[in-house]
Amino acid sequence: MKIGNYSFDEYLHLVKSFHGSLAPGLVIGGFMVDLALKSLPEGELFDAICETPVCLPDAVQLLTPCTVGNGWLTVLPFGRYAVTFYEKYGGEGVRVYLDPAKMEAWPETKAWFFKLKPKKEQDARRLFEEIREAGEKLLSVQRVRVRPETLRRKKMGPVAACPQCGEAYPVRDGERCRACGGESPYR
Amino acid sequence: MKIGNYSFDEYLHLVKSFHGSLAPGLVIGGFMVDLALKSLPEGELFDAICETPVCLPDAVQLLTPCTVGNGWLTVLPFGRYAVTFYEKYGGEGVRVYLDPAKMEAWPETKAWFFKLKPKKEQDARRLFEEIREAGEKLLSVQRVRVRPETLRRKKMGPVAACPQCGEAYPVRDGERCRACGGESPYR
Repeated sequence: MKIGNYSFDEYLHLVKSFHGSLAPGLVIGGFMVDLALKSLPEGELFDAICETPVCLPDAVQLLTPCTVGNGWLTVLPFGRYAVTFYEKYGGEGVRVYLDPAKMEAWPETKAWFFKLKPKKEQDARRLFEEIREAGEKLLSVQRVRVRPETLRRKKMGPVAACPQCGEAYPVRDGERCRACGGESPYR
Repeated sequence: MKIGNYSFDEYLHLVKSFHGSLAPGLVIGGFMVDLALKSLPEGELFDAICETPVCLPDAVQLLTPCTVGNGWLTVLPFGRYAVTFYEKYGGEGVRVYLDPAKMEAWPETKAWFFKLKPKKEQDARRLFEEIREAGEKLLSVQRVRVRPETLRRKKMGPVAACPQCGEAYPVRDGERCRACGGESPYR
Protein backbone atom coordinates (compact mmCIF):
# COMPACT_ATOMS: atom_id res chain seq x y z
CA MET A 1 0.00 0.00 0.00
CA LYS A 2 1.47 3.31 -1.13
CA ILE A 3 0.50 6.91 -0.41
CA GLY A 4 2.00 8.99 -3.18
CA ASN A 5 5.64 7.92 -3.34
CA TYR A 6 5.68 6.78 0.29
CA SER A 7 4.85 3.56 2.09
CA PHE A 8 1.90 3.90 4.45
CA ASP A 9 4.21 4.00 7.48
CA GLU A 10 6.53 6.54 5.89
CA TYR A 11 3.51 8.72 5.22
CA LEU A 12 2.36 8.46 8.87
CA HIS A 13 5.84 9.49 9.93
CA LEU A 14 5.74 12.52 7.62
CA VAL A 15 2.31 13.49 8.91
CA LYS A 16 3.46 13.38 12.49
CA SER A 17 6.55 15.42 11.75
CA PHE A 18 4.79 18.09 9.67
CA HIS A 19 1.31 18.26 11.20
CA GLY A 20 2.30 17.49 14.80
CA SER A 21 -0.16 14.66 15.33
CA LEU A 22 -1.59 11.65 13.54
CA ALA A 23 -4.95 13.23 12.76
CA PRO A 24 -7.39 10.69 11.29
CA GLY A 25 -8.43 13.23 8.66
CA LEU A 26 -4.87 13.49 7.45
CA VAL A 27 -4.55 9.73 7.12
CA ILE A 28 -7.72 9.67 5.01
CA GLY A 29 -6.40 12.78 3.26
CA GLY A 30 -3.37 10.78 2.15
CA PHE A 31 -5.60 8.21 0.46
CA MET A 32 -7.63 11.04 -1.10
CA VAL A 33 -4.65 12.85 -2.60
CA ASP A 34 -3.15 9.57 -3.77
CA LEU A 35 -6.38 8.55 -5.51
CA ALA A 36 -6.79 11.98 -7.10
CA LEU A 37 -3.23 11.96 -8.44
CA LYS A 38 -3.69 8.46 -9.90
CA SER A 39 -6.85 9.67 -11.65
CA LEU A 40 -5.12 12.55 -13.42
CA PRO A 41 -3.38 12.46 -16.78
CA GLU A 42 0.37 12.41 -16.31
CA GLY A 43 2.70 15.28 -16.92
CA GLU A 44 0.28 18.18 -16.86
CA LEU A 45 0.44 21.10 -14.47
CA PHE A 46 -2.25 20.90 -11.84
CA ASP A 47 -3.41 23.27 -9.16
CA ALA A 48 -5.20 22.06 -6.03
CA ILE A 49 -8.32 22.98 -4.08
CA CYS A 50 -9.13 21.86 -0.55
CA GLU A 51 -12.76 22.50 0.35
CA THR A 52 -11.88 22.78 4.03
CA PRO A 53 -8.91 24.26 5.91
CA VAL A 54 -9.01 21.38 8.39
CA CYS A 55 -6.20 18.82 8.00
CA LEU A 56 -6.58 18.18 4.27
CA PRO A 57 -4.32 21.05 3.11
CA ASP A 58 -1.42 19.37 4.87
CA ALA A 59 -1.94 16.12 2.91
CA VAL A 60 -1.77 18.15 -0.31
CA GLN A 61 1.32 20.05 0.82
CA LEU A 62 3.11 16.85 1.86
CA LEU A 63 2.30 14.82 -1.24
CA THR A 64 2.26 17.29 -4.12
CA PRO A 65 4.14 20.40 -5.29
CA CYS A 66 1.10 22.53 -4.33
CA THR A 67 1.51 24.66 -1.20
CA VAL A 68 -0.26 27.67 0.30
CA GLY A 69 2.88 29.78 -0.11
CA ASN A 70 3.43 29.03 -3.78
CA GLY A 71 -0.21 29.72 -4.62
CA TRP A 72 -0.93 26.36 -6.27
CA LEU A 73 -3.22 25.32 -3.40
CA THR A 74 -6.45 27.20 -2.74
CA VAL A 75 -8.31 26.58 0.51
CA LEU A 76 -12.08 27.11 0.41
CA PRO A 77 -14.28 27.45 3.51
CA PHE A 78 -17.01 24.94 2.59
CA GLY A 79 -16.36 22.44 5.35
CA ARG A 80 -16.64 19.59 2.83
CA TYR A 81 -13.96 16.94 3.03
CA ALA A 82 -12.93 17.07 -0.61
CA VAL A 83 -9.83 17.72 -2.66
CA THR A 84 -9.62 18.71 -6.32
CA PHE A 85 -6.74 18.87 -8.76
CA TYR A 86 -7.34 20.75 -11.99
CA GLU A 87 -5.47 21.76 -15.07
CA LYS A 88 -4.62 25.33 -14.26
CA TYR A 89 -5.72 26.98 -17.50
CA GLY A 90 -8.59 24.88 -18.83
CA GLY A 91 -9.93 23.86 -15.45
CA GLU A 92 -10.49 20.15 -16.22
CA GLY A 93 -9.94 18.16 -13.12
CA VAL A 94 -10.68 15.44 -10.64
CA ARG A 95 -12.44 15.80 -7.30
CA VAL A 96 -12.13 13.19 -4.56
CA TYR A 97 -14.44 13.30 -1.55
CA LEU A 98 -15.13 11.33 1.56
CA ASP A 99 -18.44 9.70 0.64
CA PRO A 100 -21.05 9.37 3.42
CA ALA A 101 -22.85 6.66 1.42
CA LYS A 102 -19.73 4.48 1.63
CA MET A 103 -19.32 4.90 5.36
CA GLU A 104 -22.02 2.49 6.47
CA ALA A 105 -19.60 -0.43 6.53
CA TRP A 106 -17.18 1.54 8.72
CA PRO A 107 -19.08 2.57 11.86
CA GLU A 108 -16.19 4.07 13.81
CA THR A 109 -15.27 6.23 10.82
CA LYS A 110 -18.85 7.34 10.37
CA ALA A 111 -19.17 8.17 14.08
CA TRP A 112 -15.97 10.23 13.92
CA PHE A 113 -16.83 12.04 10.69
CA PHE A 114 -20.40 12.92 11.65
CA LYS A 115 -19.44 13.53 15.30
CA LEU A 116 -21.99 10.95 16.47
CA LYS A 117 -20.18 10.48 19.76
CA PRO A 118 -18.04 12.73 21.94
CA LYS A 119 -14.30 12.55 21.31
CA LYS A 120 -13.72 10.77 24.64
CA GLU A 121 -15.95 7.90 23.62
CA GLN A 122 -14.30 7.39 20.25
CA ASP A 123 -12.12 4.34 19.87
CA ALA A 124 -9.02 5.85 18.25
CA ARG A 125 -7.37 2.51 17.64
CA ARG A 126 -10.42 1.07 15.96
CA LEU A 127 -10.80 4.25 13.90
CA PHE A 128 -7.24 3.97 12.58
CA GLU A 129 -7.66 0.29 11.78
CA GLU A 130 -10.82 1.05 9.86
CA ILE A 131 -9.23 3.88 7.92
CA ARG A 132 -6.18 1.81 7.08
CA GLU A 133 -8.30 -1.13 5.98
CA ALA A 134 -10.92 0.90 4.12
CA GLY A 135 -8.59 3.35 2.38
CA GLU A 136 -10.04 4.24 -1.01
CA LYS A 137 -13.27 2.37 -0.24
CA LEU A 138 -14.43 5.46 1.68
CA LEU A 139 -13.93 7.72 -1.31
CA SER A 140 -15.65 8.71 -4.51
CA VAL A 141 -14.20 10.41 -7.58
CA GLN A 142 -15.87 13.02 -9.80
CA ARG A 143 -14.70 14.66 -12.99
CA VAL A 144 -15.11 18.41 -12.55
CA ARG A 145 -14.51 21.57 -14.46
CA VAL A 146 -13.18 24.41 -12.38
CA ARG A 147 -13.52 28.09 -13.24
CA PRO A 148 -9.87 28.99 -12.65
CA GLU A 149 -10.54 32.73 -12.85
CA THR A 150 -12.58 32.53 -9.63
CA LEU A 151 -9.66 30.98 -7.75
CA ARG A 152 -6.47 32.39 -9.14
CA ARG A 153 -4.65 34.54 -6.65
CA LYS A 154 -4.68 38.12 -7.89
CA LYS A 155 -1.31 39.51 -8.85
CA MET A 156 -0.11 41.89 -6.19
CA GLY A 157 0.39 44.74 -8.65
CA PRO A 158 2.19 47.96 -7.70
CA VAL A 159 3.58 48.27 -4.19
CA ALA A 160 4.07 51.40 -2.08
CA ALA A 161 4.89 52.35 1.50
CA CYS A 162 1.75 52.66 3.63
CA PRO A 163 1.58 56.29 4.90
CA GLN A 164 0.55 55.02 8.35
CA CYS A 165 2.79 52.03 9.19
CA GLY A 166 5.51 52.68 6.61
CA GLU A 167 5.52 49.09 5.41
CA ALA A 168 5.15 48.01 1.79
CA TYR A 169 1.60 47.10 0.76
CA PRO A 170 -0.34 46.52 -2.48
CA VAL A 171 -1.59 49.86 -3.79
CA ARG A 172 -4.82 48.21 -5.01
CA ASP A 173 -5.90 47.98 -1.34
CA GLY A 174 -6.45 51.76 -1.16
CA GLU A 175 -4.76 54.71 0.51
CA ARG A 176 -3.54 52.66 3.46
CA CYS A 177 -2.78 48.99 4.00
CA ARG A 178 -5.68 46.83 5.18
CA ALA A 179 -4.14 46.41 8.63
CA CYS A 180 -4.01 50.19 9.17
CA GLY A 181 -7.47 50.39 7.57
CA GLY A 182 -9.01 48.63 10.56
CA GLU A 183 -8.39 44.93 10.01
CA SER A 184 -5.37 44.62 12.28
CA PRO A 185 -5.47 41.63 14.65
CA TYR A 186 -3.21 43.50 17.09
CA ARG A 187 -4.41 45.59 20.02
CA MET B 1 24.60 30.88 9.89
CA LYS B 2 21.56 28.84 10.89
CA ILE B 3 17.93 29.04 9.84
CA GLY B 4 15.95 27.34 12.58
CA ASN B 5 17.69 24.00 13.11
CA TYR B 6 19.11 23.96 9.60
CA SER B 7 22.23 25.28 7.96
CA PHE B 8 21.55 27.94 5.34
CA ASP B 9 22.16 25.45 2.52
CA GLU B 10 19.97 22.78 4.11
CA TYR B 11 17.21 25.34 4.37
CA LEU B 12 17.57 26.27 0.67
CA HIS B 13 17.32 22.59 -0.16
CA LEU B 14 14.13 22.25 1.90
CA VAL B 15 12.64 25.33 0.27
CA LYS B 16 13.27 23.97 -3.19
CA SER B 17 11.80 20.59 -2.34
CA PHE B 18 8.67 21.94 -0.61
CA HIS B 19 7.97 25.18 -2.44
CA GLY B 20 9.22 24.12 -5.87
CA SER B 21 11.58 27.05 -6.41
CA LEU B 22 14.09 29.18 -4.54
CA ALA B 23 11.83 32.19 -4.16
CA PRO B 24 13.72 35.20 -2.73
CA GLY B 25 10.81 35.88 -0.37
CA LEU B 26 11.14 32.45 1.10
CA VAL B 27 14.84 32.89 1.73
CA ILE B 28 14.12 36.14 3.56
CA GLY B 29 11.18 34.35 5.19
CA GLY B 30 13.61 31.86 6.70
CA PHE B 31 15.55 34.69 8.37
CA MET B 32 12.26 36.22 9.55
CA VAL B 33 10.94 33.04 11.16
CA ASP B 34 14.33 32.31 12.69
CA LEU B 35 14.56 35.80 14.21
CA ALA B 36 10.99 35.61 15.52
CA LEU B 37 11.57 32.23 17.16
CA LYS B 38 14.77 33.48 18.79
CA SER B 39 12.85 36.45 20.18
CA LEU B 40 10.20 34.31 21.90
CA PRO B 41 10.34 32.88 25.40
CA GLU B 42 11.15 29.17 25.26
CA GLY B 43 8.74 26.36 25.84
CA GLU B 44 5.45 28.15 25.38
CA LEU B 45 2.83 27.25 22.79
CA PHE B 46 2.74 29.73 19.97
CA ASP B 47 0.42 30.20 17.02
CA ALA B 48 1.53 31.99 13.88
CA ILE B 49 0.21 34.71 11.60
CA CYS B 50 1.44 35.50 8.11
CA GLU B 51 0.21 38.85 6.86
CA THR B 52 0.41 37.67 3.26
CA PRO B 53 -0.30 34.36 1.54
CA VAL B 54 2.70 34.85 -0.75
CA CYS B 55 5.72 32.66 0.06
CA LEU B 56 5.95 33.42 3.78
CA PRO B 57 3.47 30.70 4.93
CA ASP B 58 5.82 28.08 3.54
CA ALA B 59 8.73 29.35 5.67
CA VAL B 60 6.51 29.02 8.75
CA GLN B 61 5.34 25.55 7.76
CA LEU B 62 8.90 24.37 7.09
CA LEU B 63 10.47 25.75 10.24
CA THR B 64 7.79 25.51 12.93
CA PRO B 65 5.00 23.13 14.03
CA CYS B 66 2.42 25.61 12.69
CA THR B 67 0.69 24.59 9.45
CA VAL B 68 -2.46 25.62 7.61
CA GLY B 69 -3.98 22.17 8.13
CA ASN B 70 -3.45 22.02 11.89
CA GLY B 71 -4.87 25.51 12.38
CA TRP B 72 -1.87 26.99 14.16
CA LEU B 73 -1.04 29.22 11.19
CA THR B 74 -3.45 31.96 10.13
CA VAL B 75 -2.91 33.67 6.79
CA LEU B 76 -4.18 37.26 6.53
CA PRO B 77 -4.67 39.13 3.23
CA PHE B 78 -2.82 42.35 4.09
CA GLY B 79 0.01 42.00 1.59
CA ARG B 80 2.50 43.05 4.28
CA TYR B 81 5.64 40.94 4.48
CA ALA B 82 5.38 40.17 8.18
CA VAL B 83 5.17 37.13 10.43
CA THR B 84 3.93 37.01 14.01
CA PHE B 85 4.13 34.32 16.67
CA TYR B 86 1.89 34.76 19.71
CA GLU B 87 0.99 32.91 22.85
CA LYS B 88 -2.28 31.33 21.85
CA TYR B 89 -4.36 32.30 24.89
CA GLY B 90 -2.97 35.62 26.11
CA GLY B 91 -1.94 36.89 22.70
CA GLU B 92 1.50 38.24 23.69
CA GLY B 93 3.81 37.88 20.77
CA VAL B 94 6.55 38.97 18.44
CA ARG B 95 6.14 40.39 14.96
CA VAL B 96 9.00 40.43 12.46
CA TYR B 97 8.70 42.45 9.26
CA LEU B 98 10.75 43.28 6.24
CA ASP B 99 11.64 46.91 6.98
CA PRO B 100 11.69 49.34 4.03
CA ALA B 101 13.84 51.77 6.06
CA LYS B 102 16.59 49.15 6.28
CA MET B 103 16.59 48.38 2.58
CA GLU B 104 18.50 51.45 1.42
CA ALA B 105 21.82 49.65 1.77
CA TRP B 106 20.57 46.74 -0.34
CA PRO B 107 19.48 48.19 -3.69
CA GLU B 108 18.72 44.93 -5.50
CA THR B 109 16.52 43.80 -2.60
CA LYS B 110 14.70 47.10 -2.54
CA ALA B 111 14.16 46.99 -6.31
CA TRP B 112 12.75 43.47 -6.02
CA PHE B 113 10.53 44.20 -3.02
CA PHE B 114 9.06 47.43 -4.35
CA LYS B 115 8.98 46.13 -7.93
CA LEU B 116 11.11 49.04 -9.11
CA LYS B 117 12.20 47.15 -12.21
CA PRO B 118 10.63 44.47 -14.38
CA LYS B 119 11.48 40.89 -13.41
CA LYS B 120 13.62 40.46 -16.55
CA GLU B 121 15.89 43.29 -15.49
CA GLN B 122 16.40 42.00 -11.96
CA ASP B 123 19.78 40.49 -11.19
CA ALA B 124 18.74 37.26 -9.42
CA ARG B 125 22.29 36.37 -8.46
CA ARG B 126 22.95 39.75 -6.92
CA LEU B 127 19.58 39.61 -5.14
CA PHE B 128 20.43 36.28 -3.52
CA GLU B 129 23.87 37.49 -2.50
CA GLU B 130 22.35 40.56 -0.90
CA ILE B 131 19.72 38.57 0.96
CA ARG B 132 22.27 36.06 2.20
CA GLU B 133 24.62 38.79 3.31
CA ALA B 134 22.00 41.06 4.81
CA GLY B 135 19.88 38.43 6.54
CA GLU B 136 18.45 39.91 9.73
CA LYS B 137 19.72 43.38 8.82
CA LEU B 138 16.66 43.76 6.59
CA LEU B 139 14.28 43.03 9.45
CA SER B 140 12.69 44.75 12.41
CA VAL B 141 11.05 43.21 15.47
CA GLN B 142 7.99 44.47 17.34
CA ARG B 143 6.34 43.23 20.49
CA VAL B 144 2.63 42.84 19.76
CA ARG B 145 -0.50 41.75 21.49
CA VAL B 146 -2.86 39.75 19.35
CA ARG B 147 -6.60 39.42 19.91
CA PRO B 148 -6.70 35.64 19.56
CA GLU B 149 -10.51 35.56 19.44
CA THR B 150 -10.43 37.37 16.10
CA LEU B 151 -8.21 34.71 14.58
CA ARG B 152 -9.06 31.37 16.13
CA ARG B 153 -10.62 29.02 13.66
CA LYS B 154 -14.23 28.43 14.62
CA LYS B 155 -15.02 24.93 15.79
CA MET B 156 -16.90 23.12 13.08
CA GLY B 157 -19.80 22.23 15.37
CA PRO B 158 -22.53 19.76 14.36
CA VAL B 159 -22.25 18.11 10.96
CA ALA B 160 -25.04 16.85 8.70
CA ALA B 161 -25.49 15.60 5.15
CA CYS B 162 -26.23 18.44 2.74
CA PRO B 163 -29.69 17.81 1.20
CA GLN B 164 -28.37 18.83 -2.21
CA CYS B 165 -24.95 17.17 -2.67
CA GLY B 166 -25.29 14.56 0.10
CA GLU B 167 -21.86 15.36 1.54
CA ALA B 168 -21.19 16.18 5.19
CA TYR B 169 -21.06 19.92 5.96
CA PRO B 170 -21.15 22.16 9.05
CA VAL B 171 -24.78 22.81 10.02
CA ARG B 172 -23.88 26.37 11.05
CA ASP B 173 -23.55 27.21 7.33
CA GLY B 174 -27.33 26.98 6.86
CA GLU B 175 -29.74 24.62 5.14
CA ARG B 176 -27.27 23.64 2.45
CA CYS B 177 -23.50 23.59 2.24
CA ARG B 178 -21.84 26.76 0.97
CA ALA B 179 -20.85 25.10 -2.31
CA CYS B 180 -24.47 24.19 -3.10
CA GLY B 181 -25.47 27.63 -1.82
CA GLY B 182 -23.81 29.29 -4.81
CA GLU B 183 -20.10 29.46 -3.94
CA SER B 184 -19.01 26.41 -5.90
CA PRO B 185 -15.92 26.93 -8.07
CA TYR B 186 -17.10 24.18 -10.44
CA ARG B 187 -19.14 24.73 -13.60
